[in-house]
Amino acid sequence: MAPLADLYQVSMAYGHWRAGRHRAPAAAELFFRRPPFRGSFALGAGLAEGLRGLRAFRFSAADVAYLRSVLPSTIDDAFFDYLATLDASEVTVTAIPEGSVIFARVPFLQVKGPLLVVQLLETTLLCLINYASLVATNAARFRLLAGPDMKLIEMGLRRAQGPDGALSASKYSYIGGFDCTSNILAGKLYGIPVRGTIAHSFIMSFRCLEEVQPRELPPRAGGDPMDLADLAVSWLQRVCDLLQTPPSKANQGELAAFVSYAVTFPCDFQGLLDTYCVRRSGLPNFCAVALALHQLGYQAIGVRLDSGDLAQQSKEIRGVFQACGAHFQVPWFGTIPIAVSNDISEQSLEEFRREGSEIDMIGIGTHLVTCPLQPSLGCVYKLVEVNGSPCLKLTEDEEKMTIPGIKAIYRLYDAAGHPFMDLMALEEEPSPSAGQELGIRVLGRLEETTKVIPTTVEPLHRTYFRDGQVCEPLPSLPEVRTHAQVSLNLLSPAHRRLHEPQPYPV
Amino acid sequence: MAPLADLYQVSMAYGHWRAGRHRAPAAAELFFRRPPFRGSFALGAGLAEGLRGLRAFRFSAADVAYLRSVLPSTIDDAFFDYLATLDASEVTVTAIPEGSVIFARVPFLQVKGPLLVVQLLETTLLCLINYASLVATNAARFRLLAGPDMKLIEMGLRRAQGPDGALSASKYSYIGGFDCTSNILAGKLYGIPVRGTIAHSFIMSFRCLEEVQPRELPPRAGGDPMDLADLAVSWLQRVCDLLQTPPSKANQGELAAFVSYAVTFPCDFQGLLDTYCVRRSGLPNFCAVALALHQLGYQAIGVRLDSGDLAQQSKEIRGVFQACGAHFQVPWFGTIPIAVSNDISEQSLEEFRREGSEIDMIGIGTHLVTCPLQPSLGCVYKLVEVNGSPCLKLTEDEEKMTIPGIKAIYRLYDAAGHPFMDLMALEEEPSPSAGQELGIRVLGRLEETTKVIPTTVEPLHRTYFRDGQVCEPLPSLPEVRTHAQVSLNLLSPAHRRLHEPQPYPV
Repeated sequence: MAPLADLYQVSMAYGHWRAGRHRAPAAAELFFRRPPFRGSFALGAGLAEGLRGLRAFRFSAADVAYLRSVLPSTIDDAFFDYLATLDASEVTVTAIPEGSVIFARVPFLQVKGPLLVVQLLETTLLCLINYASLVATNAARFRLLAGPDMKLIEMGLRRAQGPDGALSASKYSYIGGFDCTSNILAGKLYGIPVRGTIAHSFIMSFRCLEEVQPRELPPRAGGDPMDLADLAVSWLQRVCDLLQTPPSKANQGELAAFVSYAVTFPCDFQGLLDTYCVRRSGLPNFCAVALALHQLGYQAIGVRLDSGDLAQQSKEIRGVFQACGAHFQVPWFGTIPIAVSNDISEQSLEEFRREGSEIDMIGIGTHLVTCPLQPSLGCVYKLVEVNGSPCLKLTEDEEKMTIPGIKAIYRLYDAAGHPFMDLMALEEEPSPSAGQELGIRVLGRLEETTKVIPTTVEPLHRTYFRDGQVCEPLPSLPEVRTHAQVSLNLLSPAHRRLHEPQPYPV
Repeated sequence: MAPLADLYQVSMAYGHWRAGRHRAPAAAELFFRRPPFRGSFALGAGLAEGLRGLRAFRFSAADVAYLRSVLPSTIDDAFFDYLATLDASEVTVTAIPEGSVIFARVPFLQVKGPLLVVQLLETTLLCLINYASLVATNAARFRLLAGPDMKLIEMGLRRAQGPDGALSASKYSYIGGFDCTSNILAGKLYGIPVRGTIAHSFIMSFRCLEEVQPRELPPRAGGDPMDLADLAVSWLQRVCDLLQTPPSKANQGELAAFVSYAVTFPCDFQGLLDTYCVRRSGLPNFCAVALALHQLGYQAIGVRLDSGDLAQQSKEIRGVFQACGAHFQVPWFGTIPIAVSNDISEQSLEEFRREGSEIDMIGIGTHLVTCPLQPSLGCVYKLVEVNGSPCLKLTEDEEKMTIPGIKAIYRLYDAAGHPFMDLMALEEEPSPSAGQELGIRVLGRLEETTKVIPTTVEPLHRTYFRDGQVCEPLPSLPEVRTHAQVSLNLLSPAHRRLHEPQPYPV
């Protein structure tokens, strides 16, 4: 595959080459200007893929031929020959470890190398890191809102920007704190736990109990198989008596679908309750089949709701489960996990918390993978030094100003172990040490000097890529996920939850 | 690659297989429930990729082994053997041609075949069509807002959901009416025109004129090369006199970058004006270099602005170009194309139109590829018939109701040639003809019957896939793009522009 690049990068590369500046030593930084979702932080992600992109960076003969066909014909042939020789072997990349909490304007990556290559890498790195960090951050916010015990399932395959976007969404949601994905390919490729429930289409494909085939199930402990449909019908009567709802309102196709699923997956039976009426059909049908299974020694694993007021319904359903559990003396019945889905957003999670709910598991698709609150992180990649001279962009737009020079980045921790500041110093300045009083300036208030005394000082960047190779062992996906949760938990509650940005000094 | 599927589809497939229903004839439809972006229409796209997905649909031995490892161990081995034999050879797909305007609830695709396969295809088709149609629709809206003469460039590579999302964005923006992309790979793979400008990083990599190397350029008509930097410096003085701005405020690094770019691309010189101050630096520097080039017989091709009030600045810049053109007697100078970028949204285009502007070309990235107004189309894929019986989902959520049965779809046109209604009839009903009075019911107002007389009736669906093969020649990308513009232009202005949804009857 050709390098991911915008055409202007190649035009400019020619400019540098013609000017003999293509090998000038240069440095660039990748950072975002404003924290996403009006929060204070992001999770840095996409580093491993970015490094793979670096290793693969190369123009094939076909790429060069294509570029020759679209660039001005005045371009010197020798430039195309030069392009064909390029790779990232002279590039050095330092970065904050993947999964770390990162803040606005603090470089997540620094790239040093020959000007031409450093500039050509811009889009590759942005493309691989922007969405990765965005969706990991989004997932982390869902995790913070849902609390540590809620099961969170990513199910955005059908809503992502195609197959590849969906795979990125699965991977980086997992890093951000999700438990599993519905995407089989993501499970297969990345080893992320996969999980599935049951769909309306399955329920709707049944019309009546006569269609259920086979219907017999042996008891778990062994013995003669019994007709689960018959058992379910008799349990339905008892459940409807208890719930005071007419059995005639319980949809027969739905009952058939539940029985069929239960015969097929007796140890993994779960119900989708809202194909028809939840209260008068889905819930009695589910309870009937689950109790019939119980009679044979099996335990249902859960239900899912996909429409309506999810928090309110979850409480009613929990009440019914508890009533059935008590009445029929099936203790586990009261704690059957309740899963919900249907356009779940941060706002939904806030509502669940406010109203109270009995939800145990949440499936999130669209609002996770498309990040509607802010569909792009807006990372930028800026030259900060060429030929030993710092680069500065001074525009009328103050926010778009670049901080010149190659920087060393330190995270300063307070006595409680919370990071309270990221410190950017020029590379040649002495590194700060713990317990030392530091004179710093806070970005946005550059005229004042402040003093801080960090309890701990952590240099944030490590060298990940040198001489064309990844030179630091890359952690596994679960390790990155754990690191992300540790990094998030270190944040002081004010930074973790609120809309107060963390100040950071240069 | 394993089929794009969610785990529950495979669980349910096992349910169907166990019940011996896996080969039951079934039909499903793919449609969206609400038009995106609060408009009335969408552009249907992603069909060709969806058909490719069908042709490739197959579980490899490794896929099957993986599924065996994650599904309950109670599953019958013979099911996995069966999975390994599956493909889409018994599936028939009809669809509305790619690039057509489509409306809510009217099926874009219909899939018929064995129940198990029809159900397994759900996520593949949704994943390939959802984003494609969304971004094509978004692009079409930008095109409608910008008018037919504005050049529109897609430049979202760095903001998409990874490389693949970016390629989809380039392709489907082009279908929706964009002129070109900045993404080299999209140009190479799809033949979309690529176009590039110049970046701030290029400008910032220069500090002074001494760095420019080479500086000499022969006149276009031949002759001795001249030092373009010297020429530009003397032109800068004259331009600054005319514009009454001090030459000392014109950034020397920027001037150097422009000279270097002009020497490199004398026939394709363009300037990025806002690295430093537009009025006192970018604009005088650009004019100086463009006039120096003109002296040698070359013509600059444009400028780009990437910050500030773009409409207002474009008018000031046009004024300066016209003043220079008149004063220095360079007629083409007044019409140098002005391109803008920087977070351009539909709202920006509305503002440009309201305020008036001198903008000729617009580069759109984030707001095009991430569709922040609605980051997901929400297409759904629903079973409508199994074993000859229509399927109906009746939930408490009226909008989520499914219209049962296999349908034939007709578009009805009025005497002015505008489509005024899409008609869904059951497949077995006689097809309507032009000039005939039809009794119809409008969805959402099903109790009333209305009469309409269409001037023209167009059957919308064609059969695209049968016997495992694509059976209708697929148009090229430019053909689809043209079809989309024709389809959009047929819309009556009320449907094309406003927020009144097109009524459609069953």
